[in-house]
Amino acid sequence: MAIWLEQASADFETQFSAFLTTKREVSEDVNTVVRSIIEDVRARGDAALHDYSLRFDKVDLAAVGMQVTEAEIDQAFAAVEPGVVEALTLAAERIERHHARQMPKDDIYEDAIGVGLGSRWTAVEAVGLYVPGGTASYPSSVLMNAVPARVAGVERLVMVCPASGGAINPAVLVAARIAGVSEIYRIGGAQAVAALAYGTETIKPVYKIVGPGNAYVAAAKRQVFGTVGIDMIAGPSEVLVIADAENDPDWLAADLLAQAEHDAGAQSILITTDRALGEAVEQAVERQLKTLSRAETAAASWRDFGAIILVESLAASLPLANRIAAEHLELAVADPDALLPGIRNAGAIFIGRHTPEVIGDYVGGSNHVLPTARSARFSSGLSVLDFVKRTSILRLGPDQLNALGPAAITLAHSEGLDAHARSVSIRLNRGR
Amino acid sequence: MAIWLEQASADFETQFSAFLTTKREVSEDVNTVVRSIIEDVRARGDAALHDYSLRFDKVDLAAVGMQVTEAEIDQAFAAVEPGVVEALTLAAERIERHHARQMPKDDIYEDAIGVGLGSRWTAVEAVGLYVPGGTASYPSSVLMNAVPARVAGVERLVMVCPASGGAINPAVLVAARIAGVSEIYRIGGAQAVAALAYGTETIKPVYKIVGPGNAYVAAAKRQVFGTVGIDMIAGPSEVLVIADAENDPDWLAADLLAQAEHDAGAQSILITTDRALGEAVEQAVERQLKTLSRAETAAASWRDFGAIILVESLAASLPLANRIAAEHLELAVADPDALLPGIRNAGAIFIGRHTPEVIGDYVGGSNHVLPTARSARFSSGLSVLDFVKRTSILRLGPDQLNALGPAAITLAHSEGLDAHARSVSIRLNRGR
Repeated sequence: MAIWLEQASADFETQFSAFLTTKREVSEDVNTVVRSIIEDVRARGDAALHDYSLRFDKVDLAAVGMQVTEAEIDQAFAAVEPGVVEALTLAAERIERHHARQMPKDDIYEDAIGVGLGSRWTAVEAVGLYVPGGTASYPSSVLMNAVPARVAGVERLVMVCPASGGAINPAVLVAARIAGVSEIYRIGGAQAVAALAYGTETIKPVYKIVGPGNAYVAAAKRQVFGTVGIDMIAGPSEVLVIADAENDPDWLAADLLAQAEHDAGAQSILITTDRALGEAVEQAVERQLKTLSRAETAAASWRDFGAIILVESLAASLPLANRIAAEHLELAVADPDALLPGIRNAGAIFIGRHTPEVIGDYVGGSNHVLPTARSARFSSGLSVLDFVKRTSILRLGPDQLNALGPAAITLAHSEGLDAHARSVSIRLNRGR
Repeated sequence: MAIWLEQASADFETQFSAFLTTKREVSEDVNTVVRSIIEDVRARGDAALHDYSLRFDKVDLAAVGMQVTEAEIDQAFAAVEPGVVEALTLAAERIERHHARQMPKDDIYEDAIGVGLGSRWTAVEAVGLYVPGGTASYPSSVLMNAVPARVAGVERLVMVCPASGGAINPAVLVAARIAGVSEIYRIGGAQAVAALAYGTETIKPVYKIVGPGNAYVAAAKRQVFGTVGIDMIAGPSEVLVIADAENDPDWLAADLLAQAEHDAGAQSILITTDRALGEAVEQAVERQLKTLSRAETAAASWRDFGAIILVESLAASLPLANRIAAEHLELAVADPDALLPGIRNAGAIFIGRHTPEVIGDYVGGSNHVLPTARSARFSSGLSVLDFVKRTSILRLGPDQLNALGPAAITLAHSEGLDAHARSVSIRLNRGR
């Protein structure tokens, strides 16, 4: 039921271009509501948080407390199956080990004329982590956001998560402790973002806010951007599978559905050289859909946005893949290394038939927060770099100033900036 | 006439907090106008660009051509003083050499159990560079934005610059050629941003847009964000000078005014341990203002936002500096290395009495596009990293999938994602 596109057909380019620009998200305009919530939290602080939690989450924070206690986290550990705790621990260790390699190094040096130059990296002091409530409350996302922050050296890592009826998914609390989250508050929505950005009596403000959320959370993040930093605004998930003829259609169908079950706006695309495989995958998708608990979501995604693209050669798939710029790209081919150098735009690449994208969602070690909606053309997945910042260093003595000063004065004058010129010339004793 | 704050006074914390949150920008709400301009450019392409250029820049693009020709750039070289061309060349070489060190390296490796992991960096293919017209049309900014993009390996670097009456500052064209800009278009404003993001008949779209601009340009960048990447939205400039008693007040006054002359919203702050020095700097500022061509702007900035903060010790300046998180921080003290480790939040640090910030504006080699408005708490200056993106790599064989698969299945089930679990289990022959 997915759309079929054939590279050999005369109108392929027209169809593919249209396919690329298909919108998969209804953009709700919630800006006005969000603006008033943020203003209210800035004005009334904790009192506003209490009101919104009562209204939206049916939680009386005065009764249950805003901050989640250590005892509650202990209880969560007791409530979660030991196998899940073990799996989360394994995942956290692998994520930590991989992300530790991303820590950038300071580079302080002297150039040929003795000018000291450099880049110094420091961690963002305090970071807020938004975790959605309800069915989208994923412990794996807590790890993917929190572990890189800890690796970067963030001292204060503040999690917010709405608690419908007072409860937070215990696996989320377990993941938060494993990942080293410092504080957890039982709040959500735009009001939680406002509290993180501006602070309240109970919550000290942070400098950056990361993590996924609904339209209200996304709008709130955009609005507080500038006051604090934010991560990317994630859209619905995508997978692109490039496959040769030698694949088990059931394996690929499962991979396509793993993406589709996330969200009705998710997108699963198969590019193959083999029409028979494409047809077999399509049949397997229909078959597997029947036994899926989230069949309705997955079916809607596959029906509305799924695609099978038939290409004339694997090499011909590369320019298409680069234009699609998928969040996740699987290379289910005999010789993936032949394709790898030709892939330029992708959030993450999963190489070979035994690397389903799902491994990257959980235990591969790489991050599952990746650029969606073709933004891999210009942006990267979450990493340690998102939690550090670089300060430039410049150091001149009188000799270096004598060497470089005249050019600076020339440029300052040419830009009409007298005080700029004077700030150098005065040190060269060329007049005040 | 700047504000004085004294750490020894009882209400210092209150005053300093208020000072920190002073707004220095009038935020014009131009979103509605900008939205309609963007929609018009998307709908009508070049025709819309022609209309807006005629209306806003008084330029008939049909007569002078949208794209700047090589011959025009040749003419610009002839029109600019040779000393300026030389200074721009020197600056470009130093910027290139420094930024080449920022190029991140791929990291592809195998972990202990044989899982292939890695990060692969690739350049953004096409980047747009906005250059303002009029008095804010700075050739140095062209270098600071374009050179890092070329170092990163960006193939297509497209500059836009409005030409009031048809003319672009020739020094800007010279800088563009020196920096290796590939195409230059005589357009500006929100319409230029729209053309870069969505393309027109003449201009192919880019994937990322960088460079400063007025409120319309900033609003347009925010609105096209997502379709393309953008750099930070820069606010008015700031300098913080930390000074001991042993300074020439005239040197520091020149540095403070170099910042103030940029914009009435710019901010210049002196922190000193020595009241007499503070007073002498204040007098020197008043004296120097008299001979400045941009005296009105500089005086307004100093009057409205300038500050002298008297502290009890140099060490006591550090927490204040970290809260101010200045774009530019000068350490005009005898032993700057004693302060350096304590500085956490700053866009760039200028070390010692012979490193005026202005050197960094032009010829130091480091980038002058730096985080303003306290955003150095969570963000960095422009670098090669802004023009590359990272793709994650994951590669498992059957053995690695057997090792990690069960934990992934456990987590998928715990998150209620059946197809995720199946995508792994089906490969482990645990059932379909």
